[in-house]
Amino acid sequence: MATQDNISGYLIAPVPGAPRLTRAVDGVDHDGKPTTISVVEERPLTIFLNGQEIVTAMTIGDYPEYLALGFLRNQGMLRADETVHRVEYDEDLDTVVVRTDGQTTFEEKLKKKTRTSGCAVGTVFGDMMEGLEKVTLPDIQVRTSDLYALASIINRTPSLYLEAGAIHGTVLCQGDRPLVYMEDVGRHNAVDKIAGWMFSEGVGPGDKTLYTTGRLTSEMVIKTALMGIPVLASRSGFTAWGVEIARQVGLTLIGRMRGRRFVCLAGEERLLRDADPDAVPDEDRKHRRKGGME
Amino acid sequence: MATQDNISGYLIAPVPGAPRLTRAVDGVDHDGKPTTISVVEERPLTIFLNGQEIVTAMTIGDYPEYLALGFLRNQGMLRADETVHRVEYDEDLDTVVVRTDGQTTFEEKLKKKTRTSGCAVGTVFGDMMEGLEKVTLPDIQVRTSDLYALASIINRTPSLYLEAGAIHGTVLCQGDRPLVYMEDVGRHNAVDKIAGWMFSEGVGPGDKTLYTTGRLTSEMVIKTALMGIPVLASRSGFTAWGVEIARQVGLTLIGRMRGRRFVCLAGEERLLRDADPDAVPDEDRKHRRKGGME
Repeated sequence: MATQDNISGYLIAPVPGAPRLTRAVDGVDHDGKPTTISVVEERPLTIFLNGQEIVTAMTIGDYPEYLALGFLRNQGMLRADETVHRVEYDEDLDTVVVRTDGQTTFEEKLKKKTRTSGCAVGTVFGDMMEGLEKVTLPDIQVRTSDLYALASIINRTPSLYLEAGAIHGTVLCQGDRPLVYMEDVGRHNAVDKIAGWMFSEGVGPGDKTLYTTGRLTSEMVIKTALMGIPVLASRSGFTAWGVEIARQVGLTLIGRMRGRRFVCLAGEERLLRDADPDAVPDEDRKHRRKGGME
Repeated sequence: MATQDNISGYLIAPVPGAPRLTRAVDGVDHDGKPTTISVVEERPLTIFLNGQEIVTAMTIGDYPEYLALGFLRNQGMLRADETVHRVEYDEDLDTVVVRTDGQTTFEEKLKKKTRTSGCAVGTVFGDMMEGLEKVTLPDIQVRTSDLYALASIINRTPSLYLEAGAIHGTVLCQGDRPLVYMEDVGRHNAVDKIAGWMFSEGVGPGDKTLYTTGRLTSEMVIKTALMGIPVLASRSGFTAWGVEIARQVGLTLIGRMRGRRFVCLAGEERLLRDADPDAVPDEDRKHRRKGGME
Protein backbone atom coordinates (compact mmCIF):
# COMPACT_ATOMS: atom_id res chain seq x y z
CA MET A 1 0.00 0.00 0.00
CA ALA A 2 1.52 3.29 -1.08
CA THR A 3 2.12 6.12 1.35
CA GLN A 4 -0.53 8.83 1.35
CA ASP A 5 1.90 11.58 2.31
CA ASN A 6 4.62 12.43 -0.15
CA ILE A 7 3.76 16.06 -0.81
CA SER A 8 7.39 17.18 -0.66
CA GLY A 9 8.50 14.71 -3.31
CA TYR A 10 8.01 17.01 -6.31
CA LEU A 11 10.87 17.89 -8.63
CA ILE A 12 8.76 20.84 -9.85
CA ALA A 13 5.71 22.03 -7.91
CA PRO A 14 3.45 25.08 -8.37
CA VAL A 15 4.62 28.34 -6.77
CA PRO A 16 1.33 30.08 -5.89
CA GLY A 17 3.17 33.09 -4.45
CA ALA A 18 5.26 33.78 -7.55
CA PRO A 19 4.86 37.49 -8.41
CA ARG A 20 4.66 37.27 -12.23
CA LEU A 21 1.95 34.57 -12.27
CA THR A 22 -0.90 36.31 -10.47
CA ARG A 23 -2.00 39.90 -9.99
CA ALA A 24 -4.16 41.58 -7.34
CA VAL A 25 -7.12 43.16 -9.15
CA ASP A 26 -9.59 45.61 -7.58
CA GLY A 27 -13.32 45.28 -8.11
CA VAL A 28 -16.63 45.34 -6.27
CA ASP A 29 -18.45 42.41 -4.72
CA HIS A 30 -22.13 41.42 -4.60
CA ASP A 31 -22.74 43.94 -1.81
CA GLY A 32 -21.13 46.75 -3.79
CA LYS A 33 -18.15 46.69 -1.43
CA PRO A 34 -14.66 47.21 -2.87
CA THR A 35 -12.79 43.90 -3.07
CA THR A 36 -9.38 42.82 -4.30
CA ILE A 37 -8.90 39.34 -5.71
CA SER A 38 -5.92 37.39 -6.99
CA VAL A 39 -6.16 36.78 -10.75
CA VAL A 40 -3.92 34.64 -12.94
CA GLU A 41 -1.82 36.31 -15.62
CA GLU A 42 -2.26 35.50 -19.29
CA ARG A 43 0.36 36.64 -21.78
CA PRO A 44 1.36 35.83 -25.34
CA LEU A 45 4.52 33.82 -25.97
CA THR A 46 5.75 33.58 -29.56
CA ILE A 47 7.77 30.46 -30.31
CA PHE A 48 10.45 30.41 -33.00
CA LEU A 49 12.24 27.32 -34.33
CA ASN A 50 15.55 28.59 -35.70
CA GLY A 51 14.59 31.29 -38.24
CA GLN A 52 10.90 30.51 -38.37
CA GLU A 53 8.06 31.92 -36.31
CA ILE A 54 5.88 28.93 -35.41
CA VAL A 55 3.09 29.94 -33.05
CA THR A 56 1.87 32.41 -30.47
CA ALA A 57 0.45 30.75 -27.38
CA MET A 58 -1.44 32.42 -24.55
CA THR A 59 0.28 31.30 -21.37
CA ILE A 60 0.61 32.14 -17.70
CA GLY A 61 4.28 32.70 -18.47
CA ASP A 62 6.31 30.30 -16.34
CA TYR A 63 8.82 27.85 -17.86
CA PRO A 64 8.72 29.42 -21.36
CA GLU A 65 11.66 27.26 -22.48
CA TYR A 66 9.86 24.05 -21.51
CA LEU A 67 6.67 25.28 -23.17
CA ALA A 68 8.54 26.00 -26.42
CA LEU A 69 10.38 22.67 -26.46
CA GLY A 70 7.28 20.71 -25.49
CA PHE A 71 5.07 22.43 -28.05
CA LEU A 72 7.57 21.70 -30.83
CA ARG A 73 7.94 18.08 -29.63
CA ASN A 74 4.19 17.51 -29.43
CA GLN A 75 3.63 19.07 -32.85
CA GLY A 76 6.23 16.79 -34.40
CA MET A 77 8.50 19.71 -35.28
CA LEU A 78 11.30 18.56 -32.98
CA ARG A 79 12.46 14.92 -33.03
CA ALA A 80 13.25 13.11 -29.78
CA ASP A 81 16.85 12.59 -30.94
CA GLU A 82 17.35 16.13 -32.24
CA THR A 83 20.11 18.25 -30.73
CA VAL A 84 18.99 21.59 -29.31
CA HIS A 85 21.91 24.03 -29.13
CA ARG A 86 20.22 26.91 -27.37
CA VAL A 87 16.83 28.02 -26.13
CA GLU A 88 16.69 31.82 -25.86
CA TYR A 89 13.83 33.42 -23.91
CA ASP A 90 13.35 37.19 -24.20
CA GLU A 91 11.09 38.38 -21.41
CA ASP A 92 10.60 41.85 -22.91
CA LEU A 93 9.65 40.58 -26.38
CA ASP A 94 7.70 37.55 -25.06
CA THR A 95 9.59 35.29 -27.45
CA VAL A 96 11.42 31.97 -27.24
CA VAL A 97 13.83 30.87 -29.95
CA VAL A 98 14.77 27.17 -30.12
CA ARG A 99 17.98 26.57 -32.07
CA THR A 100 18.75 23.17 -33.65
CA ASP A 101 20.95 21.78 -36.43
CA GLY A 102 18.01 21.01 -38.68
CA GLN A 103 16.67 23.18 -41.45
CA THR A 104 13.20 24.45 -40.58
CA THR A 105 10.78 24.17 -43.46
CA PHE A 106 7.31 23.55 -42.14
CA GLU A 107 5.34 25.28 -44.87
CA GLU A 108 3.36 22.10 -45.55
CA LYS A 109 2.77 21.41 -41.88
CA LEU A 110 1.85 25.03 -41.25
CA LYS A 111 -0.52 25.02 -44.23
CA LYS A 112 -2.22 22.00 -42.76
CA LYS A 113 -2.60 23.77 -39.45
CA THR A 114 -4.56 26.51 -41.12
CA ARG A 115 -7.43 24.15 -41.60
CA THR A 116 -7.75 23.37 -37.92
CA SER A 117 -6.63 26.64 -36.42
CA GLY A 118 -10.09 27.41 -35.07
CA CYS A 119 -10.36 23.97 -33.59
CA ALA A 120 -12.07 24.15 -30.25
CA VAL A 121 -9.62 21.81 -28.61
CA GLY A 122 -6.80 24.17 -29.38
CA THR A 123 -4.33 22.22 -31.41
CA VAL A 124 -3.64 20.54 -34.71
CA PHE A 125 -5.92 17.56 -34.76
CA GLY A 126 -5.39 16.31 -38.30
CA ASP A 127 -1.64 16.33 -37.89
CA MET A 128 -1.71 14.62 -34.53
CA MET A 129 -3.83 11.65 -35.59
CA GLU A 130 -1.12 10.71 -38.09
CA GLY A 131 1.51 9.39 -35.68
CA LEU A 132 -0.98 7.32 -33.70
CA GLU A 133 -0.73 4.03 -35.62
CA LYS A 134 2.97 3.88 -34.74
CA VAL A 135 2.29 4.18 -31.01
CA THR A 136 2.82 1.14 -28.76
CA LEU A 137 2.37 1.74 -25.06
CA PRO A 138 4.16 -0.53 -22.53
CA ASP A 139 2.22 -3.12 -20.49
CA ILE A 140 3.08 -1.70 -17.09
CA GLN A 141 0.90 -2.29 -14.05
CA VAL A 142 -0.82 0.58 -12.27
CA ARG A 143 -1.56 0.06 -8.57
CA THR A 144 -4.88 1.54 -7.53
CA SER A 145 -3.16 2.36 -4.23
CA ASP A 146 -0.78 4.58 -6.20
CA LEU A 147 -3.68 6.28 -8.01
CA TYR A 148 -5.36 7.06 -4.68
CA ALA A 149 -2.07 8.30 -3.22
CA LEU A 150 -1.44 10.56 -6.23
CA ALA A 151 -4.94 12.06 -6.13
CA SER A 152 -4.60 12.69 -2.39
CA ILE A 153 -1.20 14.38 -2.74
CA ILE A 154 -2.13 16.43 -5.81
CA ASN A 155 -5.39 17.67 -4.25
CA ARG A 156 -3.50 18.84 -1.16
CA THR A 157 -0.66 20.50 -3.09
CA PRO A 158 -0.72 24.32 -2.87
CA SER A 159 -1.46 25.51 -6.41
CA LEU A 160 -2.28 28.59 -8.45
CA TYR A 161 -5.69 27.03 -8.95
CA LEU A 162 -6.43 27.11 -5.24
CA GLU A 163 -4.92 30.62 -5.08
CA ALA A 164 -6.66 32.24 -8.05
CA GLY A 165 -8.69 29.67 -10.00
CA ALA A 166 -9.11 29.89 -13.78
CA ILE A 167 -6.19 27.59 -14.50
CA HIS A 168 -5.56 23.99 -15.55
CA GLY A 169 -3.14 21.60 -13.90
CA THR A 170 -1.29 18.58 -15.29
CA VAL A 171 1.01 16.36 -13.26
CA LEU A 172 3.62 13.86 -14.46
CA CYS A 173 3.70 10.98 -11.97
CA GLN A 174 5.73 7.82 -11.36
CA GLY A 175 4.27 5.16 -9.12
CA ASP A 176 2.83 6.96 -6.09
CA ARG A 177 5.00 10.04 -6.61
CA PRO A 178 4.01 13.24 -8.45
CA LEU A 179 7.19 14.47 -10.16
CA VAL A 180 6.29 17.61 -12.12
CA TYR A 181 3.13 19.67 -11.55
CA MET A 182 2.56 22.29 -14.26
CA GLU A 183 -0.32 24.77 -14.42
CA ASP A 184 -1.41 27.08 -17.24
CA VAL A 185 -4.40 29.02 -18.57
CA GLY A 186 -4.40 26.52 -21.42
CA ARG A 187 -4.24 22.89 -20.36
CA HIS A 188 -2.37 22.08 -23.58
CA ASN A 189 0.37 24.41 -22.41
CA ALA A 190 0.56 22.55 -19.09
CA VAL A 191 1.06 19.26 -20.96
CA ASP A 192 3.55 20.85 -23.36
CA LYS A 193 5.60 22.22 -20.43
CA ILE A 194 5.79 18.68 -19.06
CA ALA A 195 6.85 17.35 -22.48
CA GLY A 196 9.51 20.07 -22.65
CA TRP A 197 10.83 19.12 -19.21
CA MET A 198 10.95 15.43 -20.18
CA PHE A 199 12.83 16.29 -23.40
CA SER A 200 15.31 18.55 -21.56
CA GLU A 201 15.96 16.05 -18.77
CA GLY A 202 15.87 12.97 -20.99
CA VAL A 203 13.12 11.43 -18.88
CA GLY A 204 11.32 8.43 -20.43
CA PRO A 205 7.51 8.10 -20.55
CA GLY A 206 7.04 4.31 -20.28
CA ASP A 207 6.63 4.07 -16.49
CA LYS A 208 4.73 7.33 -16.02
CA THR A 209 1.14 8.34 -15.33
CA LEU A 210 -0.24 11.67 -16.49
CA TYR A 211 -2.83 13.30 -14.20
CA THR A 212 -4.88 16.26 -15.44
CA THR A 213 -7.54 18.49 -13.87
CA GLY A 214 -9.09 18.87 -17.32
CA ARG A 215 -11.40 16.77 -19.45
CA LEU A 216 -10.35 13.57 -21.19
CA THR A 217 -10.99 14.76 -24.74
CA SER A 218 -9.72 13.03 -27.89
CA GLU A 219 -7.01 15.61 -28.08
CA MET A 220 -5.68 15.04 -24.54
CA VAL A 221 -5.70 11.27 -25.17
CA ILE A 222 -3.82 11.66 -28.47
CA LYS A 223 -1.24 13.97 -26.92
CA THR A 224 -0.63 11.59 -24.00
CA ALA A 225 -0.33 8.58 -26.32
CA LEU A 226 2.06 10.38 -28.68
CA MET A 227 4.18 11.30 -25.65
CA GLY A 228 4.38 7.54 -24.96
CA ILE A 229 2.71 7.75 -21.54
CA PRO A 230 0.49 4.67 -21.01
CA VAL A 231 -1.85 6.01 -18.30
CA LEU A 232 -4.01 9.16 -18.26
CA ALA A 233 -6.09 9.98 -15.17
CA SER A 234 -8.41 12.87 -14.35
CA ARG A 235 -10.94 14.13 -11.84
CA SER A 236 -13.00 15.22 -14.83
CA GLY A 237 -15.16 13.51 -17.43
CA PHE A 238 -14.71 11.81 -20.79
CA THR A 239 -15.69 12.39 -24.39
CA ALA A 240 -16.77 9.41 -26.51
CA TRP A 241 -14.03 9.90 -29.06
CA GLY A 242 -11.41 10.23 -26.34
CA VAL A 243 -12.47 6.79 -25.07
CA GLU A 244 -12.43 5.28 -28.57
CA ILE A 245 -8.92 6.49 -29.29
CA ALA A 246 -7.64 5.33 -25.88
CA ARG A 247 -8.99 1.84 -26.66
CA GLN A 248 -7.41 1.88 -30.15
CA VAL A 249 -3.95 2.80 -28.88
CA GLY A 250 -4.19 0.73 -25.67
CA LEU A 251 -3.98 3.65 -23.26
CA THR A 252 -5.39 3.27 -19.74
CA LEU A 253 -8.01 6.00 -19.30
CA ILE A 254 -9.32 6.79 -15.82
CA GLY A 255 -11.79 9.58 -15.12
CA ARG A 256 -14.12 11.04 -12.49
CA MET A 257 -11.55 10.41 -9.74
CA ARG A 258 -13.20 11.74 -6.55
CA GLY A 259 -12.29 10.29 -3.19
CA ARG A 260 -12.68 6.51 -3.44
CA ARG A 261 -14.51 6.74 -6.75
CA PHE A 262 -13.18 6.49 -10.28
CA VAL A 263 -14.24 5.04 -13.62
CA CYS A 264 -11.87 3.24 -16.02
CA LEU A 265 -13.12 3.22 -19.62
CA ALA A 266 -10.02 1.88 -21.40
CA GLY A 267 -6.95 -0.24 -20.66
CA GLU A 268 -8.40 -1.73 -17.48
CA GLU A 269 -5.96 -4.67 -17.73
CA ARG A 270 -3.14 -2.43 -16.43
CA LEU A 271 -4.93 -1.87 -13.10
CA LEU A 272 -3.60 -3.82 -10.11
CA ARG A 273 -6.34 -3.48 -7.51
CA ASP A 274 -4.26 -3.53 -4.33
CA ALA A 275 -6.27 -0.85 -2.48
CA ASP A 276 -9.56 -1.11 -0.60
CA PRO A 277 -11.70 1.78 -1.90
CA ASP A 278 -13.70 1.79 1.34
CA ALA A 279 -10.49 2.65 3.20
CA VAL A 280 -10.09 5.81 1.10
CA PRO A 281 -11.51 8.92 2.79
CA ASP A 282 -14.03 11.06 0.90
CA GLU A 283 -12.97 14.54 -0.14
CA ASP A 284 -13.77 17.60 1.92
CA ARG A 285 -15.28 20.65 0.26
CA LYS A 286 -11.93 22.30 -0.44
CA HIS A 287 -10.74 19.27 -2.37
CA ARG A 288 -14.03 19.07 -4.24
CA ARG A 289 -13.33 22.65 -5.39
CA LYS A 290 -10.26 21.29 -7.07
CA GLY A 291 -12.58 19.51 -9.46
CA GLY A 292 -14.24 22.74 -10.39
CA MET A 293 -11.95 23.77 -13.23
CA GLU A 294 -12.78 27.43 -13.41
CA MET B 1 -37.62 42.35 -8.67
CA ALA B 2 -37.33 39.74 -11.40
CA THR B 3 -39.11 36.43 -11.18
CA GLN B 4 -36.90 33.53 -10.10
CA ASP B 5 -38.83 30.97 -12.13
CA ASN B 6 -38.78 31.33 -15.87
CA ILE B 7 -37.22 28.00 -16.79
CA SER B 8 -39.62 27.42 -19.68
CA GLY B 9 -38.82 30.72 -21.34
CA TYR B 10 -35.99 29.44 -23.55
CA LEU B 11 -36.11 29.74 -27.33
CA ILE B 12 -33.41 27.05 -27.47
CA ALA B 13 -32.57 24.90 -24.44
CA PRO B 14 -30.29 21.86 -24.06
CA VAL B 15 -31.79 18.46 -24.96
CA PRO B 16 -29.95 16.10 -22.59
CA GLY B 17 -31.80 13.08 -23.96
CA ALA B 18 -30.88 13.71 -27.60
CA PRO B 19 -29.46 10.44 -29.01
CA ARG B 20 -26.60 11.81 -31.14
CA LEU B 21 -25.12 13.98 -28.35
CA THR B 22 -24.25 11.38 -25.74
CA ARG B 23 -23.34 7.70 -25.76
CA ALA B 24 -23.55 4.99 -23.12
CA VAL B 25 -20.02 3.65 -22.60
CA ASP B 26 -19.15 0.51 -20.63
CA GLY B 27 -16.30 0.45 -18.15
CA VAL B 28 -15.36 -0.64 -14.64
CA ASP B 29 -15.65 1.36 -11.44
CA HIS B 30 -13.38 1.72 -8.41
CA ASP B 31 -14.63 -1.62 -7.04
CA GLY B 32 -13.91 -3.39 -10.32
CA LYS B 33 -17.64 -3.66 -10.99
CA PRO B 34 -18.88 -3.20 -14.58
CA THR B 35 -20.46 0.24 -15.00
CA THR B 36 -22.05 2.12 -17.87
CA ILE B 37 -21.84 5.90 -17.98
CA SER B 38 -23.20 8.56 -20.32
CA VAL B 39 -20.41 10.28 -22.25
CA VAL B 40 -20.64 13.30 -24.56
CA GLU B 41 -19.91 12.86 -28.25
CA GLU B 42 -17.06 14.73 -29.93
CA ARG B 43 -16.89 14.79 -33.72
CA PRO B 44 -15.12 16.81 -36.38
CA LEU B 45 -17.07 19.35 -38.42
CA THR B 46 -15.35 20.87 -41.45
CA ILE B 47 -16.62 24.33 -42.39
CA PHE B 48 -16.49 25.59 -45.96
CA LEU B 49 -17.16 29.16 -47.11
CA ASN B 50 -18.24 28.87 -50.74
CA GLY B 51 -15.39 27.00 -52.45
CA GLN B 52 -12.89 27.26 -49.63
CA GLU B 53 -12.26 24.89 -46.74
CA ILE B 54 -11.86 27.09 -43.67
CA VAL B 55 -11.54 25.02 -40.52
CA THR B 56 -12.24 21.70 -38.83
CA ALA B 57 -13.73 22.10 -35.38
CA MET B 58 -14.25 19.37 -32.80
CA THR B 59 -17.88 19.67 -31.73
CA ILE B 60 -20.63 17.77 -29.98
CA GLY B 61 -22.49 17.99 -33.27
CA ASP B 62 -25.73 19.87 -32.65
CA TYR B 63 -26.67 23.00 -34.65
CA PRO B 64 -23.86 22.64 -37.24
CA GLU B 65 -25.35 25.42 -39.37
CA TYR B 66 -25.28 27.88 -36.46
CA LEU B 67 -21.75 26.79 -35.58
CA ALA B 68 -20.57 27.40 -39.14
CA LEU B 69 -22.25 30.80 -39.46
CA GLY B 70 -21.12 31.90 -36.00
CA PHE B 71 -17.55 30.77 -36.52
CA LEU B 72 -17.33 32.69 -39.81
CA ARG B 73 -18.93 35.77 -38.20
CA ASN B 74 -16.63 35.71 -35.19
CA GLN B 75 -13.57 35.23 -37.38
CA GLY B 76 -14.54 38.23 -39.49
CA MET B 77 -15.02 36.09 -42.58
CA LEU B 78 -18.75 36.84 -42.83
CA ARG B 79 -20.00 40.43 -42.56
CA ALA B 80 -23.13 41.21 -40.55
CA ASP B 81 -24.81 42.58 -43.69
CA GLU B 82 -23.71 39.73 -45.98
CA THR B 83 -26.38 37.65 -47.72
CA VAL B 84 -26.17 33.93 -47.07
CA HIS B 85 -27.92 31.99 -49.84
CA ARG B 86 -27.65 28.51 -48.45
CA VAL B 87 -26.09 26.59 -45.59
CA GLU B 88 -25.64 22.92 -46.51
CA TYR B 89 -24.91 20.40 -43.76
CA ASP B 90 -23.85 16.88 -44.78
CA GLU B 91 -24.17 14.57 -41.79
CA ASP B 92 -22.29 11.71 -43.45
CA LEU B 93 -19.32 13.86 -44.51
CA ASP B 94 -19.36 16.01 -41.34
CA THR B 95 -19.23 19.16 -43.47
CA VAL B 96 -21.08 22.46 -43.62
CA VAL B 97 -20.92 24.69 -46.67
CA VAL B 98 -21.95 28.34 -46.29
CA ARG B 99 -22.81 29.98 -49.63
CA THR B 100 -22.63 33.76 -50.07
CA ASP B 101 -22.31 36.26 -52.93
CA GLY B 102 -18.80 37.29 -51.94
CA GLN B 103 -15.61 35.92 -53.40
CA THR B 104 -13.71 33.96 -50.76
CA THR B 105 -10.04 34.80 -50.70
CA PHE B 106 -8.71 34.50 -47.19
CA GLU B 107 -5.16 33.45 -47.98
CA GLU B 108 -3.80 36.39 -46.00
CA LYS B 109 -6.13 35.81 -43.09
CA LEU B 110 -5.47 32.09 -43.16
CA LYS B 111 -1.73 32.69 -43.27
CA LYS B 112 -2.04 34.84 -40.21
CA LYS B 113 -3.94 32.08 -38.45
CA THR B 114 -1.05 29.74 -38.96
CA ARG B 115 0.95 31.72 -36.47
CA THR B 116 -1.58 31.26 -33.70
CA SER B 117 -2.96 27.87 -34.59
CA GLY B 118 -1.44 26.25 -31.51
CA CYS B 119 -2.86 28.98 -29.31
CA ALA B 120 -4.07 27.50 -26.09
CA VAL B 121 -7.28 29.50 -26.14
CA GLY B 122 -8.27 27.91 -29.38
CA THR B 123 -8.78 30.76 -31.78
CA VAL B 124 -7.12 33.49 -33.77
CA PHE B 125 -5.93 35.95 -31.19
CA GLY B 126 -3.90 38.30 -33.38
CA ASP B 127 -6.76 38.71 -35.82
CA MET B 128 -9.37 39.23 -33.15
CA MET B 129 -7.58 42.06 -31.35
CA GLU B 130 -7.75 44.10 -34.55
CA GLY B 131 -11.46 44.90 -34.58
CA LEU B 132 -11.50 45.89 -30.90
CA GLU B 133 -10.74 49.61 -31.23
CA LYS B 134 -13.92 50.00 -33.31
CA VAL B 135 -16.10 48.44 -30.61
CA THR B 136 -18.51 50.66 -28.66
CA LEU B 137 -20.79 48.87 -26.23
CA PRO B 138 -24.15 50.46 -25.26
CA ASP B 139 -24.69 51.98 -21.78
CA ILE B 140 -27.51 49.69 -20.76
CA GLN B 141 -28.31 48.97 -17.13
CA VAL B 142 -28.03 45.49 -15.69
CA ARG B 143 -30.26 44.70 -12.70
CA THR B 144 -28.55 42.50 -10.14
CA SER B 145 -31.98 40.93 -9.60
CA ASP B 146 -31.87 39.82 -13.23
CA LEU B 147 -28.36 38.38 -12.79
CA TYR B 148 -29.51 36.35 -9.77
CA ALA B 149 -32.62 35.21 -11.64
CA LEU B 150 -30.55 34.12 -14.66
CA ALA B 151 -28.04 32.18 -12.54
CA SER B 152 -30.88 30.45 -10.69
CA ILE B 153 -32.70 29.46 -13.89
CA ILE B 154 -29.57 28.39 -15.75
CA ASN B 155 -28.31 26.28 -12.83
CA ARG B 156 -31.66 24.47 -12.65
CA THR B 157 -31.96 23.92 -16.42
CA PRO B 158 -31.54 20.26 -17.44
CA SER B 159 -28.32 20.16 -19.46
CA LEU B 160 -25.86 17.79 -21.07
CA TYR B 161 -23.40 18.93 -18.43
CA LEU B 162 -25.57 17.58 -15.63
CA GLU B 163 -26.22 14.44 -17.72
CA ALA B 164 -22.69 13.61 -18.82
CA GLY B 165 -20.27 16.35 -17.72
CA ALA B 166 -17.21 17.27 -19.80
CA ILE B 167 -18.98 20.07 -21.65
CA HIS B 168 -19.16 23.87 -21.63
CA GLY B 169 -22.31 25.94 -21.62
CA THR B 170 -22.98 29.48 -22.86
CA VAL B 171 -26.32 31.24 -22.58
CA LEU B 172 -27.57 34.33 -24.42
CA CYS B 173 -29.83 36.27 -22.04
CA GLN B 174 -32.09 39.32 -22.14
CA GLY B 175 -33.10 40.90 -18.85
CA ASP B 176 -34.05 38.06 -16.52
CA ARG B 177 -34.72 35.65 -19.38
CA PRO B 178 -32.26 33.09 -20.80
CA LEU B 179 -33.00 32.92 -24.55
CA VAL B 180 -30.55 30.45 -26.09
CA TYR B 181 -28.53 27.89 -24.09
CA MET B 182 -25.82 26.20 -26.18
CA GLU B 183 -23.40 23.53 -24.97
CA ASP B 184 -20.31 22.10 -26.64
CA VAL B 185 -17.07 20.27 -25.91
CA GLY B 186 -15.35 23.51 -26.88
CA ARG B 187 -16.73 26.63 -25.21
CA HIS B 188 -15.77 28.65 -28.27
CA ASN B 189 -18.14 26.48 -30.27
CA ALA B 190 -20.92 27.20 -27.79
CA VAL B 191 -20.38 30.95 -28.26
CA ASP B 192 -20.11 30.57 -32.03
CA LYS B 193 -23.42 28.66 -32.15
CA ILE B 194 -25.05 31.57 -30.33
CA ALA B 195 -23.47 34.05 -32.78
CA GLY B 196 -24.77 31.93 -35.66
CA TRP B 197 -28.27 31.90 -34.19
CA MET B 198 -28.18 35.71 -33.73
CA PHE B 199 -27.02 36.17 -37.33
CA SER B 200 -29.69 33.83 -38.69
CA GLU B 201 -32.50 35.36 -36.67
CA GLY B 202 -31.28 38.95 -37.02
CA VAL B 203 -31.15 39.34 -33.23
CA GLY B 204 -29.26 42.39 -31.95
CA PRO B 205 -26.63 42.20 -29.17
CA GLY B 206 -27.06 45.60 -27.49
CA ASP B 207 -29.54 44.58 -24.77
CA LYS B 208 -28.13 41.11 -24.12
CA THR B 209 -26.04 39.44 -21.43
CA LEU B 210 -23.80 36.48 -22.19
CA TYR B 211 -23.46 33.87 -19.44
CA THR B 212 -20.77 31.20 -19.63
CA THR B 213 -19.78 28.24 -17.46
CA GLY B 214 -16.20 28.75 -18.60
CA ARG B 215 -13.39 31.06 -17.57
CA LEU B 216 -13.27 34.76 -18.39
CA THR B 217 -10.11 34.66 -20.49
CA SER B 218 -8.95 37.47 -22.81
CA GLU B 219 -10.29 35.48 -25.68
CA MET B 220 -13.83 35.10 -24.28
CA VAL B 221 -13.89 38.83 -23.47
CA ILE B 222 -12.72 39.76 -26.98
CA LYS B 223 -15.28 37.46 -28.62
CA THR B 224 -18.13 38.87 -26.52
CA ALA B 225 -17.08 42.48 -27.21
CA LEU B 226 -16.75 41.87 -30.97
CA MET B 227 -20.23 40.35 -30.92
CA GLY B 228 -21.41 43.68 -29.46
CA ILE B 229 -22.70 42.16 -26.20
CA PRO B 230 -22.02 44.58 -23.31
CA VAL B 231 -22.19 42.14 -20.37
CA LEU B 232 -20.32 38.85 -19.77
CA ALA B 233 -21.01 36.83 -16.63
CA SER B 234 -19.64 33.53 -15.36
CA ARG B 235 -19.54 31.19 -12.40
CA SER B 236 -15.84 30.84 -13.08
CA GLY B 237 -12.76 32.95 -12.59
CA PHE B 238 -10.87 35.68 -14.44
CA THR B 239 -7.54 36.13 -16.14
CA ALA B 240 -5.68 39.44 -15.73
CA TRP B 241 -5.63 40.19 -19.45
CA GLY B 242 -9.32 39.38 -19.75
CA VAL B 243 -10.01 42.05 -17.13
CA GLU B 244 -7.71 44.58 -18.83
CA ILE B 245 -9.42 44.16 -22.20
CA ALA B 246 -12.89 44.35 -20.65
CA ARG B 247 -11.92 47.69 -19.05
CA GLN B 248 -10.46 48.97 -22.35
CA VAL B 249 -13.60 48.20 -24.36
CA GLY B 250 -16.04 49.10 -21.58
CA LEU B 251 -17.50 45.62 -21.14
CA THR B 252 -19.14 44.67 -17.84
CA LEU B 253 -17.30 41.60 -16.53
CA ILE B 254 -18.81 39.59 -13.70
CA GLY B 255 -17.26 36.39 -12.36
CA ARG B 256 -17.37 33.86 -9.53
CA MET B 257 -21.19 33.95 -9.49
CA ARG B 258 -22.17 31.44 -6.76
CA GLY B 259 -25.42 31.86 -4.89
CA ARG B 260 -25.48 35.44 -3.56
CA ARG B 261 -21.84 36.01 -4.37
CA PHE B 262 -20.25 37.58 -7.42
CA VAL B 263 -17.31 39.84 -8.25
CA CYS B 264 -17.44 42.61 -10.87
CA LEU B 265 -14.01 43.60 -12.17
CA ALA B 266 -15.00 45.86 -15.10
CA GLY B 267 -17.93 48.04 -16.19
CA GLU B 268 -19.43 48.24 -12.69
CA GLU B 269 -21.33 51.41 -13.69
CA ARG B 270 -23.86 49.30 -15.63
CA LEU B 271 -24.97 47.48 -12.47
CA LEU B 272 -28.30 48.53 -10.97
CA ARG B 273 -28.28 47.01 -7.49
CA ASP B 274 -32.00 46.34 -7.00
CA ALA B 275 -31.60 42.96 -5.27
CA ASP B 276 -30.75 42.15 -1.66
CA PRO B 277 -27.97 39.53 -1.81
CA ASP B 278 -28.95 38.21 1.62
CA ALA B 279 -32.33 37.25 0.18
CA VAL B 280 -30.62 35.02 -2.42
CA PRO B 281 -30.45 31.38 -1.33
CA ASP B 282 -27.09 29.61 -1.36
CA GLU B 283 -26.58 26.82 -3.88
CA ASP B 284 -27.13 23.20 -2.98
CA ARG B 285 -24.48 20.62 -3.85
CA LYS B 286 -26.01 19.78 -7.23
CA HIS B 287 -25.84 23.41 -8.32
CA ARG B 288 -22.30 23.72 -7.06
CA ARG B 289 -21.45 20.82 -9.36
CA LYS B 290 -22.53 23.05 -12.19
CA GLY B 291 -19.48 25.15 -11.45
CA GLY B 292 -17.23 22.17 -11.76
CA MET B 293 -16.52 22.48 -15.49
CA GLU B 294 -15.22 19.02 -16.15
